[in-house]
Amino acid sequence: MLKNFDENLLKYAKLLTAKGINVQPGDWVKMTVSVEQAPFARLITKEAYALGAEKVIVKWSDDEISKQHYLHQPTKVLTDIPDYEIAESEDHVLNHRVCRLSILSSDPGLLNEVDPEKVAAYQKVAGKAFKAQRNATQNDDLKWTVAAAAGPAWAATVFPDLKTSEEQVDALWDQIFKTCRIYNDDPIAVWDEHKKTLNEKATKLNEIQFDALHYTAPGTDLTLGLPENHIWQSAESYDPNGTEFIANMPTEEVFTAPDTRRMDGVVRSTKPLSYAGTMIEGIEVRFKDGKIVDISAEKGDATIKKLVHDNEGATGLGEVALVPNPSPISQSGIIFFETLFDENASNHLAIGASYPTTIQGGTKMSEEELMEHGMNVSTAHVDFMIGSAQMNIDGIKKDGTAMPIFRNGDWAF
Amino acid sequence: MLKNFDENLLKYAKLLTAKGINVQPGDWVKMTVSVEQAPFARLITKEAYALGAEKVIVKWSDDEISKQHYLHQPTKVLTDIPDYEIAESEDHVLNHRVCRLSILSSDPGLLNEVDPEKVAAYQKVAGKAFKAQRNATQNDDLKWTVAAAAGPAWAATVFPDLKTSEEQVDALWDQIFKTCRIYNDDPIAVWDEHKKTLNEKATKLNEIQFDALHYTAPGTDLTLGLPENHIWQSAESYDPNGTEFIANMPTEEVFTAPDTRRMDGVVRSTKPLSYAGTMIEGIEVRFKDGKIVDISAEKGDATIKKLVHDNEGATGLGEVALVPNPSPISQSGIIFFETLFDENASNHLAIGASYPTTIQGGTKMSEEELMEHGMNVSTAHVDFMIGSAQMNIDGIKKDGTAMPIFRNGDWAF
Repeated sequence: MLKNFDENLLKYAKLLTAKGINVQPGDWVKMTVSVEQAPFARLITKEAYALGAEKVIVKWSDDEISKQHYLHQPTKVLTDIPDYEIAESEDHVLNHRVCRLSILSSDPGLLNEVDPEKVAAYQKVAGKAFKAQRNATQNDDLKWTVAAAAGPAWAATVFPDLKTSEEQVDALWDQIFKTCRIYNDDPIAVWDEHKKTLNEKATKLNEIQFDALHYTAPGTDLTLGLPENHIWQSAESYDPNGTEFIANMPTEEVFTAPDTRRMDGVVRSTKPLSYAGTMIEGIEVRFKDGKIVDISAEKGDATIKKLVHDNEGATGLGEVALVPNPSPISQSGIIFFETLFDENASNHLAIGASYPTTIQGGTKMSEEELMEHGMNVSTAHVDFMIGSAQMNIDGIKKDGTAMPIFRNGDWAF
Repeated sequence: MLKNFDENLLKYAKLLTAKGINVQPGDWVKMTVSVEQAPFARLITKEAYALGAEKVIVKWSDDEISKQHYLHQPTKVLTDIPDYEIAESEDHVLNHRVCRLSILSSDPGLLNEVDPEKVAAYQKVAGKAFKAQRNATQNDDLKWTVAAAAGPAWAATVFPDLKTSEEQVDALWDQIFKTCRIYNDDPIAVWDEHKKTLNEKATKLNEIQFDALHYTAPGTDLTLGLPENHIWQSAESYDPNGTEFIANMPTEEVFTAPDTRRMDGVVRSTKPLSYAGTMIEGIEVRFKDGKIVDISAEKGDATIKKLVHDNEGATGLGEVALVPNPSPISQSGIIFFETLFDENASNHLAIGASYPTTIQGGTKMSEEELMEHGMNVSTAHVDFMIGSAQMNIDGIKKDGTAMPIFRNGDWAF
């Protein structure tokens, strides 16, 4: 076992509860976690109660059993989400503003063998059924954190050359601890420093208020408009009470929303994407007048096409994020096959919904108002990675003048 | 690890699905199981789908997290069972007649440190909230099986003298496999034989139709009336379609309902009882005119008193069960601190509800009609063990003549 594993796992649980979802007395906490991570879930539960949580709700899952459901349930049964499940989710979100803590640890290729039609059918109905939860989350109406734990199948995908499952899991935990800055004496203080650094870039971009971004790289020549009054965000977010939380751990990105009416050109993905339990590689996307007019992938083509064509609003983009290629996760050279990590190693875009927090007054806008302001409304939000050491990005001002933002994959200012 | 553990675990999963809940094509299966038993839960899920289940619902739990909930949630929060949880349970039971498979593995003393008031308060509201599920189960409106898996805390309680947790868990699995007849080449065929043997005793008792039973043993002198047209049952049960299932695995008992209007005398428990996560020992119960007029325990006194006084119908008995002292579980000499096992090593009684299946026409009777026939209606059903090698039981006929049923703890016919 990894040296001082128990000690570091406890530090990690403390970081996620005290800094990630930032539990306040009286809060309800809702955690989704794999049964394989039970020891970690127990630590998080204890820490959350110690911080004064009134109720901790644990929603367990298991990869192998989930796969069995997909393989054996008729689509009609699989996609019939009962009213009481929706009512539960809405009660948690609307009446209790639960702090949502999602611990990712799944096999990135879990559903490779399952008919993509079936997976897409479930994703689509789930997207509609749990709309209130998604909206509340994207709107920062509640505190939420997405973090990771080292599942054995995931670890085997990331470290196929290590001999035993134990070595693979140890290596992945080691990366999780490193990227979440757990090995520091005081991870919370180090996170405060890290936030400050990211915030400086966001502040500068917010001051300039570019009208558009122009991306160039091998296979990529893309112009994305930016809406008026867009807001570049970084690590920290705030719930409606002004309580801070960190939505992604790790995080290295500075992000905003593109103007979904002004997107033209072509972009190629640079890292594999695990979406809906399926590995997708070599994505190429063509945009015209703000819409995806063509999307293909060398691997997982059917799944990515379904994402775009079967979900409301998924022919638009919702997020544009800047991550320098020399960022620590990128420099590790490891492909994690998990967006939480890979997106923080690379410039990326998201197909689907914008975060209402990325435009002035957005969290108070209706869906119609958001769209009028160039924001995208969708049941989907799927990031894909486009960054590389060959990528240049120019910021285009209202007057048409260009200013370098990224050169050779790194910040140009 | 126990020799051939994986092979035997698979045989056990097959037995529970094919013989226990007896999955038929199109069935829905609902399993409650600890996250620590995930490998076993996966096997059961696979076997259930292989037998044609349309949907398998897995409800996970974790001892340590459950205990945290009890310790830290205010009673008001703990006892507020939301409507959607009740709706879910009712949908499963009433619309889908789920096959219920409960895998017990908990620490018998899990909630020893928790305020018994708080535990009783939860038990009481849960008893009311999940009434439909309890009634459907006790009425055999659906197929159900209670079985066990070796949890580490439970194993440590049963085998405190074994040195490592692994040895303790192995020893408990060994007992589970033995008592469930898994070590036979064909456990299903052996269970068919076992059922036949138990059925012979039940058939004879049904033919005689005793008017009452008279128990004597050290500390015990108890007369229990039996209702007219009572039915002695044993291992197998039948759902409304006539599909057979086995409600308890292991099972060694022959049982019926006492006439709740005619119970007089005193009885002492002979084995510890784990109820509501609390260990209860040395129970003494006094009856007068069909009611419990006094109950005390050397250990867990508050918990057992709360059971009787705080739950509707819990001053009456609902079950009387005969298990010969030479039964294999009893002869193992092991105290399991888990009713599923200990009740099958010992004559026992249950405080609370009768099974409507134990009287002619009972499953079609309303609660009022059941009570008019001497059956007990209650939100509780808690077995406690009274058998020993010193116990004699006479059957009393309508004409007052007595006939020995048990002598020195074993069948007298």
